[in-house]
Amino acid sequence: MRFDGRKVDALRPVKITRNYTKYAEGSVLIEMGETKVICNASIEEKVPPFLKGTGEGWITAEYNMLPRSTASRKPRDIAKLKIDGRTMEIQRLIGRALRSVVDLKVIGERTIWIDCDVIQADGGTRTASITGAFVALVDAVNKIHKRQPFNVYPIRNFVAAVSVGIVDGVKLLDLCYEEDSKAKVDMNIVMTDTLEFVEIQGTGEENPFSRSELNELLQLGEKGAKSLVQAQKDALKMDCLWIGTGESE
Amino acid sequence: MRFDGRKVDALRPVKITRNYTKYAEGSVLIEMGETKVICNASIEEKVPPFLKGTGEGWITAEYNMLPRSTASRKPRDIAKLKIDGRTMEIQRLIGRALRSVVDLKVIGERTIWIDCDVIQADGGTRTASITGAFVALVDAVNKIHKRQPFNVYPIRNFVAAVSVGIVDGVKLLDLCYEEDSKAKVDMNIVMTDTLEFVEIQGTGEENPFSRSELNELLQLGEKGAKSLVQAQKDALKMDCLWIGTGESE
Amino acid sequence: MRFDGRKVDALRPVKITRNYTKYAEGSVLIEMGETKVICNASIEEKVPPFLKGTGEGWITAEYNMLPRSTASRKPRDIAKLKIDGRTMEIQRLIGRALRSVVDLKVIGERTIWIDCDVIQADGGTRTASITGAFVALVDAVNKIHKRQPFNVYPIRNFVAAVSVGIVDGVKLLDLCYEEDSKAKVDMNIVMTDTLEFVEIQGTGEENPFSRSELNELLQLGEKGAKSLVQAQKDALKMDCLWIGTGESE
Amino acid sequence: MRFDGRKVDALRPVKITRNYTKYAEGSVLIEMGETKVICNASIEEKVPPFLKGTGEGWITAEYNMLPRSTASRKPRDIAKLKIDGRTMEIQRLIGRALRSVVDLKVIGERTIWIDCDVIQADGGTRTASITGAFVALVDAVNKIHKRQPFNVYPIRNFVAAVSVGIVDGVKLLDLCYEEDSKAKVDMNIVMTDTLEFVEIQGTGEENPFSRSELNELLQLGEKGAKSLVQAQKDALKMDCLWIGTGESE
Amino acid sequence: MRFDGRKVDALRPVKITRNYTKYAEGSVLIEMGETKVICNASIEEKVPPFLKGTGEGWITAEYNMLPRSTASRKPRDIAKLKIDGRTMEIQRLIGRALRSVVDLKVIGERTIWIDCDVIQADGGTRTASITGAFVALVDAVNKIHKRQPFNVYPIRNFVAAVSVGIVDGVKLLDLCYEEDSKAKVDMNIVMTDTLEFVEIQGTGEENPFSRSELNELLQLGEKGAKSLVQAQKDALKMDCLWIGTGESE
Amino acid sequence: MRFDGRKVDALRPVKITRNYTKYAEGSVLIEMGETKVICNASIEEKVPPFLKGTGEGWITAEYNMLPRSTASRKPRDIAKLKIDGRTMEIQRLIGRALRSVVDLKVIGERTIWIDCDVIQADGGTRTASITGAFVALVDAVNKIHKRQPFNVYPIRNFVAAVSVGIVDGVKLLDLCYEEDSKAKVDMNIVMTDTLEFVEIQGTGEENPFSRSELNELLQLGEKGAKSLVQAQKDALKMDCLWIGTGESE
Repeated sequence: MRFDGRKVDALRPVKITRNYTKYAEGSVLIEMGETKVICNASIEEKVPPFLKGTGEGWITAEYNMLPRSTASRKPRDIAKLKIDGRTMEIQRLIGRALRSVVDLKVIGERTIWIDCDVIQADGGTRTASITGAFVALVDAVNKIHKRQPFNVYPIRNFVAAVSVGIVDGVKLLDLCYEEDSKAKVDMNIVMTDTLEFVEIQGTGEENPFSRSELNELLQLGEKGAKSLVQAQKDALKMDCLWIGTGESE
Repeated sequence: MRFDGRKVDALRPVKITRNYTKYAEGSVLIEMGETKVICNASIEEKVPPFLKGTGEGWITAEYNMLPRSTASRKPRDIAKLKIDGRTMEIQRLIGRALRSVVDLKVIGERTIWIDCDVIQADGGTRTASITGAFVALVDAVNKIHKRQPFNVYPIRNFVAAVSVGIVDGVKLLDLCYEEDSKAKVDMNIVMTDTLEFVEIQGTGEENPFSRSELNELLQLGEKGAKSLVQAQKDALKMDCLWIGTGESE
Repeated sequence: MRFDGRKVDALRPVKITRNYTKYAEGSVLIEMGETKVICNASIEEKVPPFLKGTGEGWITAEYNMLPRSTASRKPRDIAKLKIDGRTMEIQRLIGRALRSVVDLKVIGERTIWIDCDVIQADGGTRTASITGAFVALVDAVNKIHKRQPFNVYPIRNFVAAVSVGIVDGVKLLDLCYEEDSKAKVDMNIVMTDTLEFVEIQGTGEENPFSRSELNELLQLGEKGAKSLVQAQKDALKMDCLWIGTGESE
Repeated sequence: MRFDGRKVDALRPVKITRNYTKYAEGSVLIEMGETKVICNASIEEKVPPFLKGTGEGWITAEYNMLPRSTASRKPRDIAKLKIDGRTMEIQRLIGRALRSVVDLKVIGERTIWIDCDVIQADGGTRTASITGAFVALVDAVNKIHKRQPFNVYPIRNFVAAVSVGIVDGVKLLDLCYEEDSKAKVDMNIVMTDTLEFVEIQGTGEENPFSRSELNELLQLGEKGAKSLVQAQKDALKMDCLWIGTGESE
Repeated sequence: MRFDGRKVDALRPVKITRNYTKYAEGSVLIEMGETKVICNASIEEKVPPFLKGTGEGWITAEYNMLPRSTASRKPRDIAKLKIDGRTMEIQRLIGRALRSVVDLKVIGERTIWIDCDVIQADGGTRTASITGAFVALVDAVNKIHKRQPFNVYPIRNFVAAVSVGIVDGVKLLDLCYEEDSKAKVDMNIVMTDTLEFVEIQGTGEENPFSRSELNELLQLGEKGAKSLVQAQKDALKMDCLWIGTGESE
Repeated sequence: MRFDGRKVDALRPVKITRNYTKYAEGSVLIEMGETKVICNASIEEKVPPFLKGTGEGWITAEYNMLPRSTASRKPRDIAKLKIDGRTMEIQRLIGRALRSVVDLKVIGERTIWIDCDVIQADGGTRTASITGAFVALVDAVNKIHKRQPFNVYPIRNFVAAVSVGIVDGVKLLDLCYEEDSKAKVDMNIVMTDTLEFVEIQGTGEENPFSRSELNELLQLGEKGAKSLVQAQKDALKMDCLWIGTGESE
């Protein structure tokens, strides 16, 4: 039994609220227990310089924590004139995760900006950001699709992410902050609905881990990812029927 | 009759939610119609260098808009390595407004950080920030007071803010974005519950205005401020009884 | 009787020197007592991106204090890689004030840069900057006009600015630093020659103020603005005859 | 057979040159085929603020590429005033990898700075940096140890890193740039001499990968890591006898 | 005969105004023809970290051009977040020149800040800055000396600077902008009153120069420096009697 | 006899290695005793804005020291968000030196980037950079020339640089760090193979110097420059035959 009463292989309660704010083409509030992230998807009708003239689109992500989303106040990046390294890592991860399931050639010369702003942080903000941002992305893509249908629906798969780790020798799914801060091994797993890996990042900074421990963690992660994809489907309802069909109507 | 059906002297619906996030000593979501701002108050047990050793405290504010709080996405400050001028102006204004009603000597050598993060912007974000931040400030001050009572309760007055302006020749209270963008004269008024001015900022960039127009605008502002202070009282209930008493129990 | 022997409603001695440096299209040294500001107006034959192709011009201002314009040396912005908030506020104010009296459509796709560099600061540098910059602006506009006459003279009004405040319970016009630092209420007023307001910014950070106090302060400000416009006329002589005529020869 | 004639499970020629520059406490040039990185370890007798007074030491890494270490010239970070995200990620990875095998309490209140400067880049610069930096770290730690012996030798394990990936459906060890740019799956593995994982980072941005593919890749990585630890031992000779003994003489 | 009627070995008219602004411990306006620079010397009762506890003082300089001191407007450094290289070079030169004639041990743990702000630039701003800053430095040092006399007067020599160059094959003293922009060889010479060199910087970017040409240029520079030291003595009158005496009363 | 056994007029051993890294169009490692600098020349097929459309090319240099190229670790510029002044000075010097011997009109609208990265610093890094960069420049220019021959070979002269100084009253050629740190006078001389000066920078910060001392230093510098040009010729062999011929085959 864990700190908050969960079983070792249980997710925290997941809540996905669509249309959370009114301007973004896709706007989602995702809550994983006490972790709360606003994920907005915005469409911009141009691409970064390296894609100009290629006909391909781009998806890029920015991640930020409100200063008091954490137990003690964290100064804003702009106050130090530097993005911190962790933030950089996370926004690169979110971008890669979403691009992995989208056909950017079909998107065309547009950029989809994903903004993940953490309102309250209780562990797992980067994985919650990916899971929530995917739903916002679907809403934004559908908005384009309704205006001017794609020949082929550009989203090939669902993608969701979850953390796993080893705390006091026990393998746990979906760590909250309390657990995360005591974890000897910490792993983030990004998976598709077909249960393939898009990204694995595992760190045993204080304690190297073995192949068999890795396998158990991946098993747990797979279980979590499956439930999260289901939560995305429940939230999107009829709006996700096109995903992976390769069709467009 | 206005764009959204309001009378010229009517506020938009005001909603103040306390304890909006769980870590901040004071945490408020304020909604003025479609404008939504999270106002967090954080206590730090030290002061800026210019106050060290004086026994006095400080209140400082930071203001930020989520990139997609607006109709088109606004890049983050950190992406340009510069805080924009409007942001600077607003956070200085919020800080002055709150300091004007607090006895900083009583606060002692602490800083209260006010973070106003705009989730959705539909005009009047700076005035909503002040009105909401005041409530967060009261909650934070009470948290100190409960731990270790002040000799004298340090908050002397309520403070709230509202915008007024002239649109198509008509004086209006509490402008939404649509109105604000057409206003020839635009004024922000910060007032106490005793209906004194803490700050007046009026601009007629496209159209200078006369003394009598100013007087009508101030009249409207006073009406709005009165209602906003009432909304603060309704939200704070028993937790605002000490304000202005100069007592501490 | 005040600190420097002035009456409560008296300006400090005003001195406006045109053609102060040789390269700028308009170059003015304005002295208000011991406050000295160089105001240069420069013409650039292009506009910021948001105006490209609109046929409209722009006026923008930058404000800076020499490090030792003040009693103790103030580090340069570049040493901290940040413009300070006060500077931002002031340069935005100067820009708005000047744009309020100019028809930017007539100016055409040009930018007029206003640089206000404070040589010596003794209170009222922002208001002196506006008053002096207006004269530099007229000189720059006339330089364009002589080369290639406008159909309609683009400057509609004079604009000047002055500070007022309450010190030890007394309302004062044109505060010097000594007075400013003791003021409970501090107000900057920007007015046209037709005695309409372009901008009012009043702060009672340490002491809220009432409507009747506001009225007395505005009265004082009006008196000061009237004298300052006269000083501008005296300095410009025949070179200001076109202002507000709507004609061009 | 690969591009450069190697077998799928072969490393490129590894060359580790110690004492490469004369000032650093540890200085190594590591060459993995055409990839060349200078790894310097510097000792500083103080720690970052968050460790002051704890008695613990710290290891931190910086990574940089010479502008022309790559096929086309890459501007320096300082020219853009921003560290790029990839650089951030890499230097955080190097730091974690080295800290994972060192007892920081034994190091005491000192910082060991690891500087990895890439002279020539042909794929695998981050993994080469870790493998080379470990050797520089041992030299630096020995320098302290000789001056003033630790009670317990602070380095518990060897650590080395290698990349693996899937190119045209084939799993490959130690990708060169040519291969890396075509890889559908790309993974960096950091391992100890006891063949435990310190870090796994695998990305299938363009192509998700299955559990069995993952297993094959880990197998390859293990083989590579084993050889790299041997190369470290060959380079260090007698100077690595203390590692993992927990003794100090 | 030159552009402005001067002989090849003539300086432009030199004018040195002391006490130009009222706050700085030393404040000088130097005019060399149309080149005008405000040189302020400020005393700060602390030293940079590398001198703390040594008992030695420091002299450091900052140089800046007003945006419209030049024929076309030059953006401020802060707008680009970068000091330009030329500015850096010049302020380092001014600092070295002044430190070369002062006994920093006698100054004690204080910093003298020299701010050179160019109001109008017509060539030779860096040399005018040095010549003018020396006079401001003497005033600042005397201010300390009067409050609390030094045992030994800390200024050992006068120091002044001048430019020389080769234009259309002719060697010229004290180049104005017109001449400077056509010069094939350009040299700045910093000398003491004993006609020794403190600094020589000569560049023949477009045209290398010979030893004999160098000698002629140095001859011209010596002549100019002699006159400039005389101008400093004329400006300082009785206030420079202590210089170089090694005495203190 | 000097610290390292050299005569007063002797250079340290010079070693110039061409093709040091594989991507740059010119890549040189220059060693002057213990000072080691990588000098890479890169060709970019565009010019800075101020040269667009002129048909002229540009040569620009960047200089950097690895953090541990020096006895104690020097933080990277990016960590402070500022290029330090010395670095700026040096890279401007390198750029001027190389441009002085190249006909930029013949180069055409291209930029040649020179990157000088100091691996190990033992005095004289700026002069070694110039001497080494010249060889890299020749290799880069020849690479263009072989692809598409210039009508006239654009390099007019060799250029090399050396330091001289006065230490304990003795004039020395090519100072190492130990000597440099004790030098009262310090001079850098950039010369062509025809023994003309391209740049002279001499500083007597702690001790002004006389004309006759200057002459002796220049004599020494000339001797050093002669040997360095010979070392460049030895390194370039047949690849420098075109220099100064004004021919192209």
